[in-house]
Amino acid sequence: MAEKSPRGLADVVAASTSISDIDGLEGRLIYRGYDIHDIAGRISFEECVHLLQRGNLPTQDQLNGLAAELADDRPIGRAVESLLQYVVDSIPMDALRTMVSALAVDDPDTADSSLEANRRKATRLVAQMPVLVARFHAARGGATTPEPDPKLGIAGNFLLQIGGEPPSERVAEIFDECLVLHADHTMNASTFTARVIAATLSDMHSAITGAMGALRGPLHGGANEAVMKTLASIEGDVENVDDFVRAELDAGRKLMGFGHRVYKTEDPRATHLRKMSEELAGLTGDSRYYEMSRRMEQVVLDTKGLYPNVDFFAASVYHALGIPTDLFTPVFAISRMSGWTAHVIEQHEDNRLIRPESEYTGPRDRHWVPVDQR
Amino acid sequence: MAEKSPRGLADVVAASTSISDIDGLEGRLIYRGYDIHDIAGRISFEECVHLLQRGNLPTQDQLNGLAAELADDRPIGRAVESLLQYVVDSIPMDALRTMVSALAVDDPDTADSSLEANRRKATRLVAQMPVLVARFHAARGGATTPEPDPKLGIAGNFLLQIGGEPPSERVAEIFDECLVLHADHTMNASTFTARVIAATLSDMHSAITGAMGALRGPLHGGANEAVMKTLASIEGDVENVDDFVRAELDAGRKLMGFGHRVYKTEDPRATHLRKMSEELAGLTGDSRYYEMSRRMEQVVLDTKGLYPNVDFFAASVYHALGIPTDLFTPVFAISRMSGWTAHVIEQHEDNRLIRPESEYTGPRDRHWVPVDQR
Repeated sequence: MAEKSPRGLADVVAASTSISDIDGLEGRLIYRGYDIHDIAGRISFEECVHLLQRGNLPTQDQLNGLAAELADDRPIGRAVESLLQYVVDSIPMDALRTMVSALAVDDPDTADSSLEANRRKATRLVAQMPVLVARFHAARGGATTPEPDPKLGIAGNFLLQIGGEPPSERVAEIFDECLVLHADHTMNASTFTARVIAATLSDMHSAITGAMGALRGPLHGGANEAVMKTLASIEGDVENVDDFVRAELDAGRKLMGFGHRVYKTEDPRATHLRKMSEELAGLTGDSRYYEMSRRMEQVVLDTKGLYPNVDFFAASVYHALGIPTDLFTPVFAISRMSGWTAHVIEQHEDNRLIRPESEYTGPRDRHWVPVDQR
Repeated sequence: MAEKSPRGLADVVAASTSISDIDGLEGRLIYRGYDIHDIAGRISFEECVHLLQRGNLPTQDQLNGLAAELADDRPIGRAVESLLQYVVDSIPMDALRTMVSALAVDDPDTADSSLEANRRKATRLVAQMPVLVARFHAARGGATTPEPDPKLGIAGNFLLQIGGEPPSERVAEIFDECLVLHADHTMNASTFTARVIAATLSDMHSAITGAMGALRGPLHGGANEAVMKTLASIEGDVENVDDFVRAELDAGRKLMGFGHRVYKTEDPRATHLRKMSEELAGLTGDSRYYEMSRRMEQVVLDTKGLYPNVDFFAASVYHALGIPTDLFTPVFAISRMSGWTAHVIEQHEDNRLIRPESEYTGPRDRHWVPVDQR
């Protein structure tokens, strides 16, 4: 008999995973046994990709091998190139979801879901995602992107291709750490989507395209963009934050960037993003959004008892990095691609169809009558 | 505390719905209160679309209105047109998933998820899906499709556009009934995918693109194609079926088209499809696959106690209708689009994020060491 769990599957275990773990009460996030506090700022995004997709932090040889693969895997296919001109006016995640789907058309491994092929596709998608975002952004400005710099990693090359000039070493490091922090987070809605699709034994690109669609939602990946729009909408400076927050709460509106289905204390990623936001305020000489964020955090904690989640300080950090607000969710996708692809590999390795039940609440015992008697 | 349900969410209620219901023990399927046995063969696919998306069987005026909307909604946008030439060599569901995603780029309602906009998008997707399949199929033959015939409905026009000539009235009716039978089926993997995506408050096209990716899987929409390939692989005629089935089972291979996560008796859709397969054998004068299917059904029931599911007789029916085997899953999508879109509308009307938990089975307490010490 079906067991009722109507609360959006909250507290229901949908799958086993050895990729990441969350302790919502302790505020801990683990990637394959490593606490996020132990590795954030110490490993590059490339090392994180290796950890999530292949299970271990790479040796220097493994890391060099992966970096070479990632560099070779950057080119995007003809179908995606042809799409660029048609999607320049689209919502970025609509354009990018379509382009990710189109990557399958030119991928040599699309019809092959073996472990080896899945690993090749996983690496390729991680390499291609920042290229798609940068190419899309350039195309809507009628431009192309600078050639990638072989001395830079994924983080540095993305900032180069978005901003048109090489980032400083420290700025590239900060963005690299952002990518590590957003890389995986257990059964969030987009990762769960990818696993449900993969569990039909559908392919890597189908699963990732579905994940892109889920990440697009304002309750998931869209939240960091909503936070930035909130910050930008507050007139004046930090002294107006208190009134703004109280007015929003009095009007019954939800403040984006606070609270989490799983964390009941501070999101451990927020701890790092807060520090980065502060450091970037110093580096750029513009502390406005950092200070507004700090004040808002305090007011929301005092009045609602809610902690900031990963999206809250990501907003001021991405803004300080020069990333356009409407690319915040695509940047989240660049990072999460590493986790999504690891989950698809894992799902295919020990698969079972994910097919829940529903509770029927509609009418009963209706009987057909001909159309002229309705 | 998380509650363990490791069996692919079997028996776990993921959502409430008033769209469809299944009684797996009694072998009943209900669309908004109507038993499938009461309406199959009596209502057109257009009436079924109205029932699923809007909640009731239409009056003649409502039906005329919907038919006019569907006719107006057929044109596909520039982005999709541009893609056609690049996807002609793709796996059909890869091409179609990408084209469905690209429809969003030219849809006037993409940024609007209000009930009214969702209803417009739902109708548009139902109208466009058969056009996408027919255009894709024509493009890979270097051809275009015949103009739709305003006197024909979705079923008749699809057969016209795929086959190049108008179907007989009875053949069009049979395909129309197929579309009704496949239209909705509670929380199957693709519908569940659509709801998980929609539950982030992402948009209709994101949800449907994800559903396309799930339907592509061999364990879901790909099963009807697998059945046809099985039938076609049996040399000779019906007298070889027994040996074939026993050899497959002895070799430990799974026979596609049998058994179902929910039905423990005959799938009520199979009852209708079996009759159609028989009728088409008479109409076409070719009973080979019908007779092989009947024999296989008997052998599998006798040896394994498994009943045929919706995919089993759909194979010989679609084949007799002249549909190429590699378009069986896309044809499933033409029908299921009506149910998917209804579920997205329903999810958005009373939304809660769908975010389950996972059980961590990986390593613990690993500690970072520098790359040169790994």
